[in-house]
Amino acid sequence: MHMAAFYNPSPTGGIERTGRAADVTAPTARYPFEVTLHQGEIEKIFLDAMSEKGVQVDRAIVPTSLEVSSDPAILSDPQAYAVKVVLQHMSRPESQQEEVVYAKYVLGADGAHSWVRKTLGIAMEGENTDYVWGVVDTIPETDFPDIRNKSAIHSRNGSCMVIPREGDVVRLYIQVEQAAFVENGRIDKSKVTPQHLMEVASKSFQPFTISFPHEIMWWTLYVIGQRVAARYSLHERVFIAGDACHTHSPKAGQGMNASMNDTHNLSWKIAHVLRGWSDISLLKTYEFERRKYAQDLINFDKKFAALFSGKPRSDDNEDGVSHEQFLEAFQTFGGFTSGIGVHYEASALVDPTNQHLARHLRIGERLIPQVVVRAADARPENIQELIPADTRYKLLLFPGDISTPAQKEKLGDLAHALSAATSFRRRFTPPNAPVDAVFDIVTICTTPKEEVNFTDVPLALRSHWSKVWTDDEQLAGGVGGKVYETYGISTTEGAIVVVRPDGYVSAIAPLDGVKYLDQYFSGILHNQTV
Amino acid sequence: MHMAAFYNPSPTGGIERTGRAADVTAPTARYPFEVTLHQGEIEKIFLDAMSEKGVQVDRAIVPTSLEVSSDPAILSDPQAYAVKVVLQHMSRPESQQEEVVYAKYVLGADGAHSWVRKTLGIAMEGENTDYVWGVVDTIPETDFPDIRNKSAIHSRNGSCMVIPREGDVVRLYIQVEQAAFVENGRIDKSKVTPQHLMEVASKSFQPFTISFPHEIMWWTLYVIGQRVAARYSLHERVFIAGDACHTHSPKAGQGMNASMNDTHNLSWKIAHVLRGWSDISLLKTYEFERRKYAQDLINFDKKFAALFSGKPRSDDNEDGVSHEQFLEAFQTFGGFTSGIGVHYEASALVDPTNQHLARHLRIGERLIPQVVVRAADARPENIQELIPADTRYKLLLFPGDISTPAQKEKLGDLAHALSAATSFRRRFTPPNAPVDAVFDIVTICTTPKEEVNFTDVPLALRSHWSKVWTDDEQLAGGVGGKVYETYGISTTEGAIVVVRPDGYVSAIAPLDGVKYLDQYFSGILHNQTV
Repeated sequence: MHMAAFYNPSPTGGIERTGRAADVTAPTARYPFEVTLHQGEIEKIFLDAMSEKGVQVDRAIVPTSLEVSSDPAILSDPQAYAVKVVLQHMSRPESQQEEVVYAKYVLGADGAHSWVRKTLGIAMEGENTDYVWGVVDTIPETDFPDIRNKSAIHSRNGSCMVIPREGDVVRLYIQVEQAAFVENGRIDKSKVTPQHLMEVASKSFQPFTISFPHEIMWWTLYVIGQRVAARYSLHERVFIAGDACHTHSPKAGQGMNASMNDTHNLSWKIAHVLRGWSDISLLKTYEFERRKYAQDLINFDKKFAALFSGKPRSDDNEDGVSHEQFLEAFQTFGGFTSGIGVHYEASALVDPTNQHLARHLRIGERLIPQVVVRAADARPENIQELIPADTRYKLLLFPGDISTPAQKEKLGDLAHALSAATSFRRRFTPPNAPVDAVFDIVTICTTPKEEVNFTDVPLALRSHWSKVWTDDEQLAGGVGGKVYETYGISTTEGAIVVVRPDGYVSAIAPLDGVKYLDQYFSGILHNQTV
Repeated sequence: MHMAAFYNPSPTGGIERTGRAADVTAPTARYPFEVTLHQGEIEKIFLDAMSEKGVQVDRAIVPTSLEVSSDPAILSDPQAYAVKVVLQHMSRPESQQEEVVYAKYVLGADGAHSWVRKTLGIAMEGENTDYVWGVVDTIPETDFPDIRNKSAIHSRNGSCMVIPREGDVVRLYIQVEQAAFVENGRIDKSKVTPQHLMEVASKSFQPFTISFPHEIMWWTLYVIGQRVAARYSLHERVFIAGDACHTHSPKAGQGMNASMNDTHNLSWKIAHVLRGWSDISLLKTYEFERRKYAQDLINFDKKFAALFSGKPRSDDNEDGVSHEQFLEAFQTFGGFTSGIGVHYEASALVDPTNQHLARHLRIGERLIPQVVVRAADARPENIQELIPADTRYKLLLFPGDISTPAQKEKLGDLAHALSAATSFRRRFTPPNAPVDAVFDIVTICTTPKEEVNFTDVPLALRSHWSKVWTDDEQLAGGVGGKVYETYGISTTEGAIVVVRPDGYVSAIAPLDGVKYLDQYFSGILHNQTV
């Protein structure tokens, strides 16, 4: 959550601040102050983590052909090698040798000019817009008091956006007149210099002074274009993800986030299919969920770009963009950048049936961050830490105060029902696997931390002492104790919240709802006990 | 801050929980949930950090002689090589070569059996006590609901203390009868086994069951001894620190913390003397401050050990130890373990004169952790992060609301006074050094975050945009906005808080108190402008 500042034309000439506001709508983003990071740093974290697991990225390989079987018998067998890919090793061109790979599934995360997408003949839908922007990364010298805030400057001399980066670096987005250097929708970059962009910026900052004595670290020009792939896969055997599927304005800063979420959405589903836990049809939900999100983001991005490029509202221009319109757009924008604006529609995976049991915890959205306190040792922790992306479904039990006989009995009945051979937990967990291999159960009760005993939760619902938590303030005070209220869960009725392996709430059941859960999971998981 | 649990004899036999409570007194410890770490892990952090600076620890060297000059002219010259040390390199014993080192200052951090202490002829004062304890680190199996809390068990079958460690490991302190295996104050460890200790523990846990199916990772037996060195230095040229100065019960868990604080207290003072910033007499404050702390800790530790080893209060034993006595001791204990119980008495360095300007921020104690919000970008941060241990004095300015003309004027006057050639800032900063080389100035105002401009603080008081903060809630809400209240500072009168390089509040001045500060710093710093 950053501070955002808004500047508009002042009656006395130049600009003046018309307001400041926090730039996210909901107080549900977990990190109170995000930092804009280089994509390279995030990539390094992934590469290092993969390397620890023995996975290396070999960049000097290009595919030369890709064929997907059209045999329905092969396509319906999740373990069949339905795809043939021919690879060329660029690091040893002298050999001219091709490598043929037969794959069960192939993912093309090969960027905006995706070879996989083109080979599959998938079209990009949408068009470029009229908006042209220059971008400069540098350390400015200025008396502008919002240089470390996200600032939208709407002046008579043009529009600017300030995005603070790491250290003292600032990224400036500068609106430029396009006529001079755009030809057939393509920018002729040779006709513009960063000095030109900075001169434009200096004018829109008046009466504040801004100068650029330091190195220009990076700069570019772009025409805002917003397009999305017509399809995200062929036969759920070859997929595309990330920039291969969608392009949009860099102002949203969502290229990397959307791409990571694409593959996060897909990867656990492929894991479940490959393990024989789920039917191959589960993979259809990937395009269903992620393509709609890309559309939502692009629709918003168009609106935002238009607002930004529009003239400010004034007495002469009553149709101009008002401060309020801008604030609203900025806040929606915050919902996207913090990742909490994503909503997946109903499917076999996302069942809104029992939404009323946790009114504010939207089924199809991420679990809302909240601090809970561990029963065994009063350690405070964010509930997000209890739902790691480890391919397991999480069952969050909300039984209320388990020191009361009524609620304790409900928990006992639930333990009994889940232990039955016919329950989903037994049926969908492979026979020789640990009891928590597919379903990880965590209890969040409301018994005060001074009284709660983790030993009060039946052993059948507690694989470790760390699986019992309570909705109370941490010992140091200040945070915690708001989970039931924030989620809209009754402390007497209770609820069971199902969280998918990627952290989205996908179903909710009553405390005695094992039958409902049997049915829900039957729609997405295979019986393992036959 | 952990949860602590107290168990006492139950009327029906065995033990029962008589209460739970947070184990620190003040809500001023920064970290809400500390973890007990292996000393080796902390040591590794230091070794790695030193290695990055090019400093290696060479363990295969022992000193064989140590001589300190007795010439007053040499002893009073801070740059003189007053100490001669002869070293023997153990890694090349074949050479039999000695190395002679002439040193300005020498620090003996060589443990409880310190060669430096013995060579200087410094006696350890104090004595062993009658209390004998066994200690076992293992992963127990138990239905005891407080096995992950710090628990004090006072049973008719003996006393136990539970300290949760990393992962599932638990450290148990078990009181044992000493007669059988103590001879002349020395323990004969061969007469006791960990199995014996665990049998004793099992009995005191009844009616709960506890068993020890896993590996015993470590165990020991000890007699509680509490001693402190008669002196901490010879002529402020050779010092001792850490276990070389003080030994106490391992239950306090303060061996490492006290030792780190000893050397932290000393090291910046030596740096100031070596740089010619301060007089050599500053080094006298090391023993003055740290020896008193060691005494305080030992006095508390004795009381705690006696409480723990005493019989519980009951109808038959009205003089026994009550639950309330125990709780109070536990909470004082928490003050020590979190480091907030340290208080340095008045000296040239610690001047309580203006305590009334910040009533709750005790001069001689650590700066109380608080969340502040950065003016330039509304970033929340703990005030502790603004006072790194970088050898500089920190001047925290508390000018109230700087958007009001009255308070803004006071800040302007202060900027003016500090810029005068006669001010302490100019006089005690070396002429060619940066303006913030000795004094780092940070402003914490009360202007709301939506209105504050970092540019409102005069440039003379602001070396960077990150030096201006405000006492407001963070954007996400929940924390922040309590600094003035917590410290007891008036928003109109304001204050200047001086924080020493080691994080202790050492003086407080009024906003127009540059004269007072001139005088205060004249007592500890040398004029650089002659």
